Amino acid sequence: MKVSRRDLLAGAAGVVALGKTAALQSQDAPADPSKVRGRPSRALGQRAPSEKPQRQPRGATSSGTPHQDLYGTITPADLHFERHHGGVPEIDPKHYSLLVHGMVERPMVFTLADLKRFPSVSRVHFLECSGNFGGRGAATEITPQQLAGLTSTSEWTGVALATLFREVGVRPQATWFLAEGQDAALLTRSIPVSKAYDDALIAYGQNGEAIRPEQGYPARLLLPGWEGNANVKWLRRIELSDRPFMTREETSKYTDPMADGTARIFSFLMDARSLITYPAYPVTVGRGWIEINGIAWTGSGKIQRVDVSTDGGATWTAARLQEPVLSKAHTRFRHLWNWAGGEAVILSRAVDEKGNVQPTKTDLIASRGVSSVGYHLNPITGWLVRPDGTVVYRAEPWA
Amino acid sequence: MKVSRRDLLAGAAGVVALGKTAALQSQDAPADPSKVRGRPSRALGQRAPSEKPQRQPRGATSSGTPHQDLYGTITPADLHFERHHGGVPEIDPKHYSLLVHGMVERPMVFTLADLKRFPSVSRVHFLECSGNFGGRGAATEITPQQLAGLTSTSEWTGVALATLFREVGVRPQATWFLAEGQDAALLTRSIPVSKAYDDALIAYGQNGEAIRPEQGYPARLLLPGWEGNANVKWLRRIELSDRPFMTREETSKYTDPMADGTARIFSFLMDARSLITYPAYPVTVGRGWIEINGIAWTGSGKIQRVDVSTDGGATWTAARLQEPVLSKAHTRFRHLWNWAGGEAVILSRAVDEKGNVQPTKTDLIASRGVSSVGYHLNPITGWLVRPDGTVVYRAEPWA
Repeated sequence: MKVSRRDLLAGAAGVVALGKTAALQSQDAPADPSKVRGRPSRALGQRAPSEKPQRQPRGATSSGTPHQDLYGTITPADLHFERHHGGVPEIDPKHYSLLVHGMVERPMVFTLADLKRFPSVSRVHFLECSGNFGGRGAATEITPQQLAGLTSTSEWTGVALATLFREVGVRPQATWFLAEGQDAALLTRSIPVSKAYDDALIAYGQNGEAIRPEQGYPARLLLPGWEGNANVKWLRRIELSDRPFMTREETSKYTDPMADGTARIFSFLMDARSLITYPAYPVTVGRGWIEINGIAWTGSGKIQRVDVSTDGGATWTAARLQEPVLSKAHTRFRHLWNWAGGEAVILSRAVDEKGNVQPTKTDLIASRGVSSVGYHLNPITGWLVRPDGTVVYRAEPWA
Repeated sequence: MKVSRRDLLAGAAGVVALGKTAALQSQDAPADPSKVRGRPSRALGQRAPSEKPQRQPRGATSSGTPHQDLYGTITPADLHFERHHGGVPEIDPKHYSLLVHGMVERPMVFTLADLKRFPSVSRVHFLECSGNFGGRGAATEITPQQLAGLTSTSEWTGVALATLFREVGVRPQATWFLAEGQDAALLTRSIPVSKAYDDALIAYGQNGEAIRPEQGYPARLLLPGWEGNANVKWLRRIELSDRPFMTREETSKYTDPMADGTARIFSFLMDARSLITYPAYPVTVGRGWIEINGIAWTGSGKIQRVDVSTDGGATWTAARLQEPVLSKAHTRFRHLWNWAGGEAVILSRAVDEKGNVQPTKTDLIASRGVSSVGYHLNPITGWLVRPDGTVVYRAEPWA
């Protein structure tokens, strides 16, 4: 089939031809690339035509990171998961401002330029929606992205919130602050002031560049290790108080039902967790040596160990951790496995520096005394490797 | 001005209108974004409309990273510098293969899938063209990107070259290997085998995703800390030998003329260096506290210290280094300066863990005994802050 550029521009018939030609072109790398002069330099790079990692939108309000396609620990910015309650607002950075008021000596408004003029800090941290690992249902043909795509890791740059708090003179009796976003949901959360003095940032940089719109452009709250929605994006206001504000998003959502009928609230910390990203659905593996690998992370600090089982939990071996292991960041683990070809369930179990151990879902439910849990899930995840080499998700029990 | 979509599609007149409308739209963020439902989730993120960092092509063969626009240490993949001698080839990953032969027990061909099946490793490293810091001429209105854009830092993932060398059984008498690219230049370099056993990788991952075309898709040689062109991209062949191959790109280029009329060859190692990226041309600063910041790096391991001077080199103070300081990677340094408003020359000077000190250009030339040098430059770089707050490049002498 031969299609000229003129044909392609000739209207409806051309559109059909374009589809076919595009398909041809994507396989159209020269047989010997060394015989063809390559493309000149350009202002922005693009992915290779055959590489198409994508986030996977779930409705209009979230999309997950394709962990099965990724290496290492840094999540490319355009693949960072997103979760929002009123869509992604478009904010003109020239008109952006952050008001800090309430129980302070000097209420102040900071422009973006003001924020950037303060001493800055860069740190690699994960973010994770507290609904991650939820809603998998009974499906087995689900990817790491579908299971737990709502977590990503970036190098964040910004100003320490403690610096701003010193600037405005936070009063000693202030123990909580409200963080309010400029999105249509006006997402608001109450945060203990102690977190600001610990390690909170107002971030405006992500993986070397300006923070992306879905991650809070031009500036967001970053609470390392704490559930995603508390890291308020498009941050426009911080109000200091001596009590929490009991907002909608911390009472109607993101709470954990307990056995006595009450609900746990303000459970910010993301527990120790891990996820095997290879091998996992939908890959097919061959017999022999397989490098099992995945990511582990915890809101409590550094991952200390990741155990891997290739027999449904009967025995465990410590995986290699990729150095440097950073605090509150995805850590890549790897474990060599010589697969003889039989059915096998592979598992990973994270242990953090505080001694927290990733539980089974059975133990997780038992610890809360309820029949099911919706948020703050960190269950050990199983993948079934079938004799034909296909891999699917496998729920408990594994043995 | 009101322009309908129909107008825009109406031909040449529409093209003019499109330009104006696009300009209007870019300033068209809602006055109060919280009153407008935002954009839904999507498969790939994009930069905010007002953020437009770009590489700066110099002719068809290179483009530099916009350091003045960046934070932290990770370079976004689409802003990683590029340098090539025959353009960027398009390589079908399904047809990619790497031949390892010569002084080996078992010559082998590895497909991309083969390479990915070996144990993998991820490491953050800089790359830098050995012509970086060259060719600035007498201009003073030049950016960090124009001065030294040919260096970038990424998290690389791949297989240790030592692993492949054990697989093929490299013979004891093999002391050098040839690395050959699949680009139209067939770029070839001779590399000591010892580097393979030290820390060389065959990399196929960059910042979490598949390596980008300009950086060697689908696989490249990575020689941490060594000059960029030796890190052969689009790698298709490795040949083991007991001597170097004396290729064109290691004899006609990338050598250093010395005082006795000879030229230094195989000067792979990139020395200790640093660059202030803020404040730098073209920003204008105001009086008061300014956070001077920039990047420092060395091929010899970790940066130990970066000294900053705000008086043209008369006095120096150690800057803060962003932790974790990684080996052979850009390290962000920061130094608070209270600018009173007078003319000032600001400088940075890197010191690495081996004790190497970034020299002045005068000392650099004196050390080689020649009147000028073209490759392997790591001079201290000066920025002149004028009383009106404008900043321009300032060559030696500074005082």
